[in-house]
Amino acid sequence: MEVKSITEQKSLLATLSPGKRTRLRRLLFEFGPGNGTLLLLPIDQGIEHGPRDFFPNPASKDPEYQFRLAAEAGYSALACQIGLAEKYYPDYAGQVPLILKVNGKTDIPPSDEAFSTTNASVEDAVRLGADAVGYTMYLGSPRQGEDLHQLKGVREDCDRFGMPLVIWAYPRGSAIDGKGGRDSFYAIDYAARMAMEMGADVVKLNMPKLNPDKDKDAPAPYNEMEVDQAEAIRHCVESAGRSLVVLSGGSKADDDVVLGNTKMVMEAGGSGVIFGRNVWQREWSEALEIVEQIKETLLGNIRRIP
Amino acid sequence: MEVKSITEQKSLLATLSPGKRTRLRRLLFEFGPGNGTLLLLPIDQGIEHGPRDFFPNPASKDPEYQFRLAAEAGYSALACQIGLAEKYYPDYAGQVPLILKVNGKTDIPPSDEAFSTTNASVEDAVRLGADAVGYTMYLGSPRQGEDLHQLKGVREDCDRFGMPLVIWAYPRGSAIDGKGGRDSFYAIDYAARMAMEMGADVVKLNMPKLNPDKDKDAPAPYNEMEVDQAEAIRHCVESAGRSLVVLSGGSKADDDVVLGNTKMVMEAGGSGVIFGRNVWQREWSEALEIVEQIKETLLGNIRRIP
Amino acid sequence: MEVKSITEQKSLLATLSPGKRTRLRRLLFEFGPGNGTLLLLPIDQGIEHGPRDFFPNPASKDPEYQFRLAAEAGYSALACQIGLAEKYYPDYAGQVPLILKVNGKTDIPPSDEAFSTTNASVEDAVRLGADAVGYTMYLGSPRQGEDLHQLKGVREDCDRFGMPLVIWAYPRGSAIDGKGGRDSFYAIDYAARMAMEMGADVVKLNMPKLNPDKDKDAPAPYNEMEVDQAEAIRHCVESAGRSLVVLSGGSKADDDVVLGNTKMVMEAGGSGVIFGRNVWQREWSEALEIVEQIKETLLGNIRRIP
Amino acid sequence: MEVKSITEQKSLLATLSPGKRTRLRRLLFEFGPGNGTLLLLPIDQGIEHGPRDFFPNPASKDPEYQFRLAAEAGYSALACQIGLAEKYYPDYAGQVPLILKVNGKTDIPPSDEAFSTTNASVEDAVRLGADAVGYTMYLGSPRQGEDLHQLKGVREDCDRFGMPLVIWAYPRGSAIDGKGGRDSFYAIDYAARMAMEMGADVVKLNMPKLNPDKDKDAPAPYNEMEVDQAEAIRHCVESAGRSLVVLSGGSKADDDVVLGNTKMVMEAGGSGVIFGRNVWQREWSEALEIVEQIKETLLGNIRRIP
Amino acid sequence: MEVKSITEQKSLLATLSPGKRTRLRRLLFEFGPGNGTLLLLPIDQGIEHGPRDFFPNPASKDPEYQFRLAAEAGYSALACQIGLAEKYYPDYAGQVPLILKVNGKTDIPPSDEAFSTTNASVEDAVRLGADAVGYTMYLGSPRQGEDLHQLKGVREDCDRFGMPLVIWAYPRGSAIDGKGGRDSFYAIDYAARMAMEMGADVVKLNMPKLNPDKDKDAPAPYNEMEVDQAEAIRHCVESAGRSLVVLSGGSKADDDVVLGNTKMVMEAGGSGVIFGRNVWQREWSEALEIVEQIKETLLGNIRRIP
Repeated sequence: MEVKSITEQKSLLATLSPGKRTRLRRLLFEFGPGNGTLLLLPIDQGIEHGPRDFFPNPASKDPEYQFRLAAEAGYSALACQIGLAEKYYPDYAGQVPLILKVNGKTDIPPSDEAFSTTNASVEDAVRLGADAVGYTMYLGSPRQGEDLHQLKGVREDCDRFGMPLVIWAYPRGSAIDGKGGRDSFYAIDYAARMAMEMGADVVKLNMPKLNPDKDKDAPAPYNEMEVDQAEAIRHCVESAGRSLVVLSGGSKADDDVVLGNTKMVMEAGGSGVIFGRNVWQREWSEALEIVEQIKETLLGNIRRIP
Repeated sequence: MEVKSITEQKSLLATLSPGKRTRLRRLLFEFGPGNGTLLLLPIDQGIEHGPRDFFPNPASKDPEYQFRLAAEAGYSALACQIGLAEKYYPDYAGQVPLILKVNGKTDIPPSDEAFSTTNASVEDAVRLGADAVGYTMYLGSPRQGEDLHQLKGVREDCDRFGMPLVIWAYPRGSAIDGKGGRDSFYAIDYAARMAMEMGADVVKLNMPKLNPDKDKDAPAPYNEMEVDQAEAIRHCVESAGRSLVVLSGGSKADDDVVLGNTKMVMEAGGSGVIFGRNVWQREWSEALEIVEQIKETLLGNIRRIP
Repeated sequence: MEVKSITEQKSLLATLSPGKRTRLRRLLFEFGPGNGTLLLLPIDQGIEHGPRDFFPNPASKDPEYQFRLAAEAGYSALACQIGLAEKYYPDYAGQVPLILKVNGKTDIPPSDEAFSTTNASVEDAVRLGADAVGYTMYLGSPRQGEDLHQLKGVREDCDRFGMPLVIWAYPRGSAIDGKGGRDSFYAIDYAARMAMEMGADVVKLNMPKLNPDKDKDAPAPYNEMEVDQAEAIRHCVESAGRSLVVLSGGSKADDDVVLGNTKMVMEAGGSGVIFGRNVWQREWSEALEIVEQIKETLLGNIRRIP
Repeated sequence: MEVKSITEQKSLLATLSPGKRTRLRRLLFEFGPGNGTLLLLPIDQGIEHGPRDFFPNPASKDPEYQFRLAAEAGYSALACQIGLAEKYYPDYAGQVPLILKVNGKTDIPPSDEAFSTTNASVEDAVRLGADAVGYTMYLGSPRQGEDLHQLKGVREDCDRFGMPLVIWAYPRGSAIDGKGGRDSFYAIDYAARMAMEMGADVVKLNMPKLNPDKDKDAPAPYNEMEVDQAEAIRHCVESAGRSLVVLSGGSKADDDVVLGNTKMVMEAGGSGVIFGRNVWQREWSEALEIVEQIKETLLGNIRRIP
Repeated sequence: MEVKSITEQKSLLATLSPGKRTRLRRLLFEFGPGNGTLLLLPIDQGIEHGPRDFFPNPASKDPEYQFRLAAEAGYSALACQIGLAEKYYPDYAGQVPLILKVNGKTDIPPSDEAFSTTNASVEDAVRLGADAVGYTMYLGSPRQGEDLHQLKGVREDCDRFGMPLVIWAYPRGSAIDGKGGRDSFYAIDYAARMAMEMGADVVKLNMPKLNPDKDKDAPAPYNEMEVDQAEAIRHCVESAGRSLVVLSGGSKADDDVVLGNTKMVMEAGGSGVIFGRNVWQREWSEALEIVEQIKETLLGNIRRIP
């Protein structure tokens, strides 16, 4: 069998059920930058970190800020928990697609045994008119078994209702710390594959960080591989197979970094980016401006249309 | 986007389902001081502390005391557990709304791993003619995951039956102790946001306590913020977004403190107060008297009508 | 509001559902001493302690002994686990009411983390023609949360089927040991209130023991209260509110103690006693004799008819 | 009330439901030695110990050996797990009754916290045409609570389907080790009573071992009782009340011991024996021979016909 | 009873339900080498080890590689998790049978308490047109009880839907390490029996490794047995009784070893092999070549046709 490059591979959408395809196409083609790309706005920092992320831009403390931003700046979708979805999304229904995050946790207790229990259901997502469901999976945590079993229920409901499943795939726990760390190429690459194996339609990954000192603790062949940043991302995108990949932005960074990362994930065959604090920690007009630049970068670097 | 002051923001009630709106309006406009305010009477000390809170006013040991007080003094609602609701509420049905607390615990074991399991259901509340359901959420506890998952079931049933959800949002556990403590501005602010994210229609908060020595252990920017009491409360009310906020009274305090706190929460955009021991530990006529003063304070300081 | 004495307070039965009222009236008025009193025979020592309690009176090893005793001596009801109920009750159906105990445990493992899982259901009780369900709740145990949640299910089924709920309310665990102990006035008083809060129709309490040395470790105001035995019981009965109270006999004691305790609980406003080993560890004619004396004591000291 | 000897007591079968009675009578009267006796063949060593028990008689490694033995030697029933029942019982359906064991475990991990989870259901037993269900209960284990709750579900299904319940009642855990040990008279006597209390129709007990050194650690009065082997067994049979008792053989023993134990349990009022390795570790003709002798011993020493 | 050799024993298929028989015959006779043999391709390394196994043959990172290989080289079936099944199997439906693995875990946390929770259901398998379900059981793990109970649910659903059950039977945990280790003859032999007892239709075993030093820690008689490799395998196959046995290949080995092991399991009465990395870590034409040789070896050494 000849080895095809990732851009020649079969489309993800081809094997999706009609319900999943209908909904995911809304994000990929009808909203946001379009042409098969994804630009997602997460508003889950309020639960994951508390209000502290809103202080740099006090206007952002009112969820209305992010909802309006998602709609007016033209995001592919916004992702939030049930409380915001119930109280803020009604005003924006039809103006921007909703990804309902169905689990989450605070960062108050330590994350040694990270596990995010569900606080909402796929049925909630259907009821609220959401176009996808989001789930945070902690790869490698001592409670990984509970996590995968809980994810089973969410995935089954997604299959039942034709609801696309977006998996936030995060390596966690002391065991991964001993193998290069949660941000290592090894860890992110495993996370990408794992999310696909568990049924993700879209995988949200953090940017792998190359760190020769720590990477030598990773299992072979990662401990001896010499890859640059672009190659590392390309590997991770490949590991996700027919699951679409979006790269996350993490905390607020320089415009160059934001746009550089965006370009890199697209060139690797990814489908887009998910930028939260990088955008809504900016004042309104600045936020609109950087979104415009990100959209251009996305559309200008497409390698694979799903 | 311009930043609106909290009093200009959209009403909570606008995005509530008909069932929730109908019931919550009873508390806000038909009973109690009215005009969109809340004056709540909690009778959960019997389970949370045992009978010891009743000794200062022996008459209060008979739950009849608090039920009659709630009805005759004109509270917006009273909150109690299933046992009291079943055996004492029938005589007051239609005279004062009921908030059925569906979880609770004793204070005998230590609260390191605080978690209140449910002892009643939303269906119980429907069956008993209650107008809301109360739930205690322990933010930051090592058992937070179980808590949020349990809350999911309660919240879903509230959505199903159109039953307003009141969340008692309490930071707990050793991790929060190391970040400024359970009563710190950081902790209460996080609790307010968390309750909204989890679907609270009304959030019950304790008064944040400013303590520079301990607050410097809180995450940035809380560790360096200089706020006064009024600003701290205003932040917490804002963090609760479209969830209504009621401030609790805690143990019995001077009238000045009681009324001062009442004024402060109203000026911050809150919706009212929940005073238990502060009221029913007083002799009957004194209790009626302080309630009258609280009601005047509530009505005289309204900033936002839900 | 004037403070009514407990004997002037409203009847428990007034707020019971028709099914609960029908069944509970059988115990209170149709069987046993009648006139609103309760004389209960527990046969749960076989599971809680093993056969060792039967050796003092070998005839009592055959459960037939206690069943016949309950019927012939005229008890209000007998309480036992599912095995005895299924194999021995059929012969006495209609002759003495049955309270099906739905949880229990052996005393082989230590009781640090006391928790009695259910081994039968309220449906079993309905199927067997029982007139009430019994549940053992361990107040203050580290596993209290599981206990209250399990009790929720039993209580809900009792509400659904109109089945009276009898709660054996026992303080347990190291935390209570550090606050005066499981038999202290503080602990028993808390247990009484807690059982009512959780929906008990009848509360079974152990006799509070006054012990100045240990009581000073109890929370205020218990640590400084000076009460005699009669006052302590009266407080506990009051704490149970509209739940009926029966006092237990514990291990076999002198007739004077048995009858003295019986008188004391009735004078405090209680509804009766539950005597097991005190009765069936006696030879047949002696057992009948002491039962007769207890019944006289019950009927001669009624303060409150439910 | 006069004390009746055990042989005068009421039959177990009298209070059984029609389904249980029909099925249990097959074991007692239609198959095996008959006349109300039980001769059971357990084939659960493969799960409890692994294949090592089969080496003394290699032919016994093929489950066909035990199934044919049960049918041809004329056992009352054979007891095995779901895998054997599904793949080997079809050929013997109607030739020998089946007791489906619904829980079990390996002996690889230590048994400090012994608990056998279910691996089959009562519905499986119904579907396979079984005439009884077997359950292993570990009395006194730290996980006893889970065990009793799991047993509840099995017992309820047995009641629902009219399926007789056979309880293998085994004392386990460090707590029982400190009170005389798992084979002590105290422990076995407790196990007998406990199984009856939990709803056993038949109780499987190990032979109590008298050991004055260890027995003095048992609770009173066991610590000072002087009983011989026959008296100990008689006590245990009495403690099981209207549950039938079968005594187990344990590992392979001399013929004299096998037959002596058989006689002893029958004289004590028991209903039979359960012999596995003692029989199928023998070569085919020897196995048939010892079975014949056991049957004679059973029929020759009947004290109580159920 | 005469002892039959394993090749004379009754067919497994004879006692299977019509649904199981129909599906299993597809694997045994319609696909793969046929004539009652099994050649299985596992693609579960992506979840169990992460992408690292794909680097030796980069083409294998794309699951398309293994799916096409399974179809074109003529495997009896391929085994994978839900994600691959949903996104890659549709293109090969009808070309090669699917075994849906319903549990799995990563190798990041240590395996001291190994337990693989389910991430898919038997219903998923039915929906996807799979012909069997795969389950990994960890024998001897401290969490063995949870494992067996979870397996109960899977097995029951397999019975309900007529879906063959393939059990990957792996000894794990510190207890087995102290008895000769997870690959010892004792451990593998126990695993084979256990899988059959739990209802496996096909058992997947690792090759037992003889290691006199460690084997002396195994229970009798394993600690003193002197067997060669072929005898050890034959014992394991016999212990699986009427469950078919397939031997696994483990990590990539020399062709001689691969083919030698294949021959050995067939001569022992096994039904086939499961080779993953040994095949797909090879370049396409080499992979086809070794598969051809394995098929010849399978067909040339059949001892027992199921």
